[in-house]
Parts: sequence; C-alpha cells; structure tokens
Amino acid sequence: MHDTFYKPFGLSVRAVILDDEGRCLLLRRSPGSRTNPGKWELPGGKAEGGEPFDRALYREISEETGLKVSLLHGAGVADSEMPSVRVVHLIMEASLVSGPVRLSDEHDAFVWAGPGEIASMELADWMKPFIISYFNKK
Amino acid sequence: MHDTFYKPFGLSVRAVILDDEGRCLLLRRSPGSRTNPGKWELPGGKAEGGEPFDRALYREISEETGLKVSLLHGAGVADSEMPSVRVVHLIMEASLVSGPVRLSDEHDAFVWAGPGEIASMELADWMKPFIISYFNKK
Repeated sequence: MHDTFYKPFGLSVRAVILDDEGRCLLLRRSPGSRTNPGKWELPGGKAEGGEPFDRALYREISEETGLKVSLLHGAGVADSEMPSVRVVHLIMEASLVSGPVRLSDEHDAFVWAGPGEIASMELADWMKPFIISYFNKK
Repeated sequence: MHDTFYKPFGLSVRAVILDDEGRCLLLRRSPGSRTNPGKWELPGGKAEGGEPFDRALYREISEETGLKVSLLHGAGVADSEMPSVRVVHLIMEASLVSGPVRLSDEHDAFVWAGPGEIASMELADWMKPFIISYFNKK
C-alpha cells in the first residue's frame, strides 16, 4: 500500500492428502510447466475470484487427482515469489476417501511418499520449508 | 462431502503485526463478545464473500486498529471449531507502517507484547498453538 511498487497477493490452496499409512500424495509437474517443471508438489492451485477456499481446493483435487478426499484442518502456509504476484499457499490436511488417482495434463507422475522419501525428492521451490516442518511436528 | 453432516469451512485472515522491537500487537476482545470474551487475539477477521484475502485483512486491520501496515508473507494457520462452521485462520506477518492504535468497539485494550509476556496472557482458544510455534521458529 505504501510501497512505490505494490505487488499484489494471490491465494493458492493446497492439500496434504494422507493415506492409511500416513504417506502423502505428491504430483510431478509436467516437463512443459511454466514454473517448476519436473518438480514434485502437493495437489491444489489458485482460488479463482470469489470462490470459497475449501470449494476451490475440492475442485483442484478432483481435477488433478480424481480422488475424493475430506478436508480436515489447516496444516500450514508457504510463500512463492512470482514476477507479478506474491502467492500465499494455504495448505490443508485431508484424508483419502476413495481413489484411484487419475492425473490431468498438468502432472505426469504421482507417488505416495513418507518423510524419508520426500526429503530426497526434487520439490517445487515453495514446498521444502513447509513439508520439513510439517513432518517434524507429526 | 462424504460425511452425513457436512460442516462448512470459513476463512479468517489474521496478522502478526510487528513493531521495530519485534513485539506483536494483541487486542483484547470486549467483555460482551459472543466468543472468547476478555481474551487476547491477533487483529483480523472473516474474509467476506468474494473478497480477496489480502484486501480483507487490510480492511480488518484498519477497522480494528486504525494502523497502516504492510503485509509481508504467510506466518501460519490455526483452526477454530464453531457450532456451525470450521474456521481456518490464515495468519500473515506484517510490519507496522504508521500508528497510533485506535480500537473499535470489538476490543477494549491493546498491547505490544514479546513472547515472554504472551506466554502468560489469556489468549483466544485458537491462538495458543500458533503463537508458541511462531516465536519458536523466530
């Protein structure tokens, strides 16, 4: 507001979807992605103008994974700096209701991974600090 | 979605406003408040239908404190269970631009407090886990 150059915020909604063994669903971004190609990320995306955050997240999860899930509670936040917007990722914990995973064109692979595996994966830039602190608190 | 009784989510936006000494602004809820009367909380409130989260937070901060602030980045999340809604608090860190504090009817006192003071204060139910982990990470 007081800045000479005001960079707006955008809201992204994301989910840590856990299976019965406490593993978390990660999706790999397609090689042609504009940002973070080939990197692993949590399902989710932009809340479109006026869309309630939980509805946006159910929609994104359905589009990207085909899964039915149940949102449980807040899990954390993360930030991405984009050229024209500061994205804040609101991350919810969710439980898996029914599968199987069906990917959209946005991703080319998926994995159910525990904290050990995740530590050695190439993650989208915004994800690393969040996921480390998330599993540390568990 | 699969629940027999589906309880909707609501989004609340909150700010950790820090002064030059790293102290955080807390407001005391008025004695007549429906929830958490007399308890201390972070400024902020509900994002109204369709309102972008950052605009909602600038509005709430202005209404409740009269301050000009600059939102910086995500600080954390917290949850409140209400009778008919599950509130997720998206908490942003903000820096103080200009004062002084002018309270609305919603609150009857304010304080700039460090982690030591905050630990001994009567906080709104949703705030305690967040603020402890927030200052631990600092």
